[in-house]
Parts: sequence; structure tokens; C-alpha cells
Amino acid sequence: MIDATTFSVSGERFTVVYRIHESATVAREIADNICVEQTIEFPEVLIQDDDIRRHVIGQVQQWDDIDTSTFDATISYAVETSGYTLTQLMNVMYGNASLFPQVKVQSFELPAALSDCFAGPRFGIAGLRRLFDRPTGPLLMTALKPQGLSAEALAEQANQFALGGIDIVKDDHGLANQPFAPFRERVAHCAAAVRRANEETGGRTVYAPMLSGPSEQLMEDAHFALEQGAGAFLLAPGLIGFDAARRIAAADEFPVPMIGHPAMLGSYVVSPHNGYSHGAMFGQLMRLIGMDASIFPNYGGRFSFSKHACQEVAASCLGAFNGYATIFPTPGGGMTLDRLPELSAFYGEDVMFLIGGNLHRQGTTLAESSRAMRAKASTL
Amino acid sequence: MIDATTFSVSGERFTVVYRIHESATVAREIADNICVEQTIEFPEVLIQDDDIRRHVIGQVQQWDDIDTSTFDATISYAVETSGYTLTQLMNVMYGNASLFPQVKVQSFELPAALSDCFAGPRFGIAGLRRLFDRPTGPLLMTALKPQGLSAEALAEQANQFALGGIDIVKDDHGLANQPFAPFRERVAHCAAAVRRANEETGGRTVYAPMLSGPSEQLMEDAHFALEQGAGAFLLAPGLIGFDAARRIAAADEFPVPMIGHPAMLGSYVVSPHNGYSHGAMFGQLMRLIGMDASIFPNYGGRFSFSKHACQEVAASCLGAFNGYATIFPTPGGGMTLDRLPELSAFYGEDVMFLIGGNLHRQGTTLAESSRAMRAKASTL
Repeated sequence: MIDATTFSVSGERFTVVYRIHESATVAREIADNICVEQTIEFPEVLIQDDDIRRHVIGQVQQWDDIDTSTFDATISYAVETSGYTLTQLMNVMYGNASLFPQVKVQSFELPAALSDCFAGPRFGIAGLRRLFDRPTGPLLMTALKPQGLSAEALAEQANQFALGGIDIVKDDHGLANQPFAPFRERVAHCAAAVRRANEETGGRTVYAPMLSGPSEQLMEDAHFALEQGAGAFLLAPGLIGFDAARRIAAADEFPVPMIGHPAMLGSYVVSPHNGYSHGAMFGQLMRLIGMDASIFPNYGGRFSFSKHACQEVAASCLGAFNGYATIFPTPGGGMTLDRLPELSAFYGEDVMFLIGGNLHRQGTTLAESSRAMRAKASTL
Repeated sequence: MIDATTFSVSGERFTVVYRIHESATVAREIADNICVEQTIEFPEVLIQDDDIRRHVIGQVQQWDDIDTSTFDATISYAVETSGYTLTQLMNVMYGNASLFPQVKVQSFELPAALSDCFAGPRFGIAGLRRLFDRPTGPLLMTALKPQGLSAEALAEQANQFALGGIDIVKDDHGLANQPFAPFRERVAHCAAAVRRANEETGGRTVYAPMLSGPSEQLMEDAHFALEQGAGAFLLAPGLIGFDAARRIAAADEFPVPMIGHPAMLGSYVVSPHNGYSHGAMFGQLMRLIGMDASIFPNYGGRFSFSKHACQEVAASCLGAFNGYATIFPTPGGGMTLDRLPELSAFYGEDVMFLIGGNLHRQGTTLAESSRAMRAKASTL
């Protein structure tokens, strides 16, 4: 037995909805296990009738039958268990539970005591619409690629895209610090190329370099990019860590839009029975860490997301969540110009379209194919 | 078309074995897609017969039929695509491919040009055996818990475990900076408690605090812990990011053993068809980022790992891998004293046993149950 322990807590709790794929009896057992595993990770029988039992162990607050082998357990935890940090919040939410093959985080809710600890998106939809002076209609994004081009060649692309009126010209997420186009050289050239185009057109295009450098260098890279004139950052929390992405987004020294990329996050969503729901991952978590746009693979492209999954992401980017700004769902991956009307009808007005390779397939200059994309978007 | 591009590369390539669960025809298509997706992420038809095609696009080097719907594609990539950093190496290996539900990384191989960029484990098995003066037999680890105890109560546990001869006394991975036992207070008390016990017994027990603080504070936390006398660090790459863990492990300023924890990594291994193999995740990646011991859920405990999965982890901790030191497979999770003989036979001599809650169930002092564990281990 552990000595009876007393302490006071605020009484504020956050909740996580776990979808459990099992028979009813086993699902109940798993829910009880989650309450223990995610908090005390200790034989419950050795805990007395004390404040650890009352406050630290999770509590099943609600139970919903989805079907005969699918149940939603809403479990609440004292905010104190999170230590008021993102990393530990995610640890309580799903640290060891990620090892349970039949448990998936559907969604979560935070009390103000916890959500106040995270700044969330700095711009969001309203802020990006002001920044780009696009009060209505979809925003447009494209990517500099392929890897292997020189910094100059990528910058020439950036210039063309900006001349054509694309809002955000981002690095391909695979551009890091390769010898073909080293980070500093590429960022300097591409930022300058976008600036030249804006001066020519009076446009507001921004260049978003990928920040994926080593932990030791990441903040320095971000400073360098900002000094060179980068107007947004591309961050992949699956690669650099959720908390590293949050740190950059929350820092007042980087007052630019943040774009979340799904690299390495696929394994959290592709299983129907484990991981996070598409909405929790690409909506809630991306907003929590301060992304202003969330890239995800569009349905019908070369990835696996269903229409339903894409709808869920969009709903979670656009729905109410602790007063955080809504953010742009940004479908990409094998997107084509012809699909813009269909996708516009599907996603509605608040969407950012990411079209990469297809702009190169139009048989015209990139400036012209970008203008065609912009023209098409303006009719939507 | 992209202008034909020329550059020179070293010719050195790293390889990744992807296990693809599909029909033979579709599997071949997916392998070809991976070659493109993980590198240029661009319509291949727009690439000329140039150095991008020759060197940047991945190449299927080998094809193995596992069964009629399972195939291993060994794909090689130019080392230059990795930018010689961990984050980008993992991005090429599995960034966007993580979104393919039927693609799993089985293993990977690095040429010296790449493995030389990562220090790997500082101690490994040989180093830890010297550190603890345990030339043979299993090493022993336990955890301070449950969350909710005060720093003093946790320190009292630490003292008892150390008196009983446990080699590594770690924080429960859920201990962060909660008000019950704030990080600095807990680390100071626990490190001192272990030191007192060592002075009394002449033992060499080390205390391993969990480092999961916010990105802004993580290095400062590590310095504080070291100054207080922490003798090892507990790191969860799934929580703080793989590269943050690598950074701490590689830093000469932290010359202590590193222990890898699987929190939030479950979703990468529980699916048979997506993610990483157990060996690639808990063996290869943990060694690459410099962990000296790799904690994973033992078979027959409260988690899901099969005997086969545990064998795979152990083999990957102990096998040849680019000259990196071998590391201790560290099974934990619902482990009991009675299972030590069985587990010792299963894992062999080079294993670290992590027993947590069970030491509290013995109805004796923690020092006595620790001594019982040590006595049992010495007969194995």
C-alpha cells in the first residue's frame, strides 16, 4: 500500500474521447485501464481511498455505444496531471495508450486553465485573409520542387509562382539542407525572388521555407529565414516534434503564419483502430500548437484519405475549439486545376488549395499556370 | 519539363526495406511511388534523363516475395537526400510514406558517410556493465510512482530501491512538472536520496529523471538534473521528438546513460501493415539516436506485444548495426519477480529488467523487495 496522500487540486479537468474497438465487456475493462495507465501507471489496488485515487486517476465520464463492437469512452483527467505543458498533456492523452491496438483518440476538450497555456494560431483564417487581402474565396499555395534543383532554379520557380499570384509559395517538405540547394542559399534566393515579384505586381505572396534542421540549429534557422524575408514557416511536427513546432509558432520573435505538414504523422491516422482521428490530429492538435493552416492529403489523390476523413479534418479546423482561431484546411497531394470547382463545393469557402506538380503540367510558364489557378479560384 | 540538371554525388546510398501488403502488381506500383514520393514528390514524367533522375529518385534494389500478398522492397537513396541530419533521414525514410496504409519500414542500412553523422550510444551494453560493475547477468531498473506522491515520498522510494541494489531508478514517465512533485524539487530530492543510499552501501545505483519539459526549457532541465547528481536520463522520443532526444544524447555536456521510452510510439508499431517494425523502432532508431537502453512492453504483460515482437526488439538492440554499440533491451510493463527465470531464458544474458508496481506488491519494504529481485537476478 502507498501511504494515503492528500493535496488540493483546482477541480478543473480535461477530457479525451477514446474510441475503443472491442466487445462491450472488454471495452469497459480497457477504459478502466486507460484511467490508470495514463496517470498513475501503478496497481490500483495499492492506492488507498485518498487524493491520488480521487484526483489523479482518470475518470470515465461518459459512455457511448457506437455499435456492438465500438464504444466511445470519455475520460477526464485533472489539469494538474498535464503539468500545463504540451508534451505532458499529449503523454496523458495518449502516451502509453498508443500501445493499445484498439484505442484511438477521437477528440479532446480542454478547460480554460489548460487552453490558456497554449497561444494557438496567431493568424488563423481571419488573419491570413487580412494578410493576403483576400476577404473571400480560397487561398492558394504551391511548392518548390523537385529536390535536386539548385537554389537559383528553385528561386526562379518562386518568382514565377509569385508573379502568378499564388498566396503562399512553400518549400517542398523534402527540401532540407541538401548539397543541391543548401538551406541558407535556398532561403535567401527564394525570399528575394518572391520579394522581386511582389515589387513588380504589388502582390503579397509569401515564401514559406521548410524548417527541419537539427534541434541545435532550428531556432537559428528560423531567425535566418525571417531575416531573409521569409513570410511564413513550414513545420512538420511529426519530424521536429510537436513541442518544437509549438515553440516556434508561439514565439513572438516569429510573427509569421505557420503551416503544418503531415510528414511522419500518417501512422497516427491510417489505422481505423489506433492513433488519433483525422480531426484530432490535423485539426485540434495543429490548432493547439499554433498552425494557421493544416496540410493533409486530399481524397482522390495519391494518398489514402477518404472523403469522410477530409470532411472531418475541415470540420475540426473550422469548428469551435476553446476560442482558438479557426485555420485553413489545406488539401494537397496530387491535386489538379480541374478539380478546383468540385473541391470548392466540397470544402466551402474557407479552404487553401495546395497544388504542386500539376502547375508544371500545364505546358505554359509557371506564372501563367499560376494565373490560371488564380483565375479559376476567383470564379469559385 | 524541368530543365535537365547536373550535379555530382558521392555515390553512397542508404537503403530502407519496406514491407508492402498488397497484390504483387499493386505492390510494385507502390514501391515505384515510394521512390518518387520520398524524394522529388513530383510528376516523374516531367523529369528528364538527368542527374535528378539518376541520383535523387529512389531506386528499388531488391525485391523479395514474403507471401502472395506481402513483399519486401529494398529501396536505396543517395545519402545527399538526407542532408546528413536525423530529421531529414527519417523524412526520406518514411515522411509521406507514413500516409500509405500498406507500407511498413522493416529495417534500414546506412553507409558510413551517414552513420558517421550520428554518435549512437555512448555507453551501450559494455559501458553500462562497467558503470554498474555488473560484468554478467541482467541489469535491473525500476520506476518511482505513482504520480500524486510528493517529491519527498518519491525520494524515499528512490532511497529504498537504491539500498536494495537496483541499478537504475527512473522516474515514472508520467512524472513531469506537476504541482504534486515539481520537476526541480523531485530531481533534487531523488538524486540526493540515491546518493545517500550509495554512500551507505557502496553501491552504484543511478537516478534517471524523465526529461519531458517544454522545448524552451529542455536543455536547462537536463543541466539542472546533471548538477543535482542524476546519473542517467529518461527520454521519450515520441513525446519530445527524435531529434531532441538525439541532441541530448549526443551532447558531450551530458556524459550519462540515456534510456529510451516508448510513449506515443505505439501507433508506429501496433499495425501489422503500417509504421515501423518493432526492431526498426525500438532497436535501430533508438540506437541511432543514442539510447543505451530501450524500454518496450514485455509480452504477456498488460500491453500487446507478441513474443515474436519482443524477440525482434532484442535482436535489433543486440545485432550488428554500423558499428554502433549494442544496447540493453529493457522489457517492462506488468512485469513480476516470478517471471524473471522465464524471461531470462527468453532474452538471454544481455537484458535489463524493468519492474515497477510489482516491487510494491511483495508485502515488504521496497529495499527488501529490491534485494529479492537482485538475489533472483544473480541466480539467473
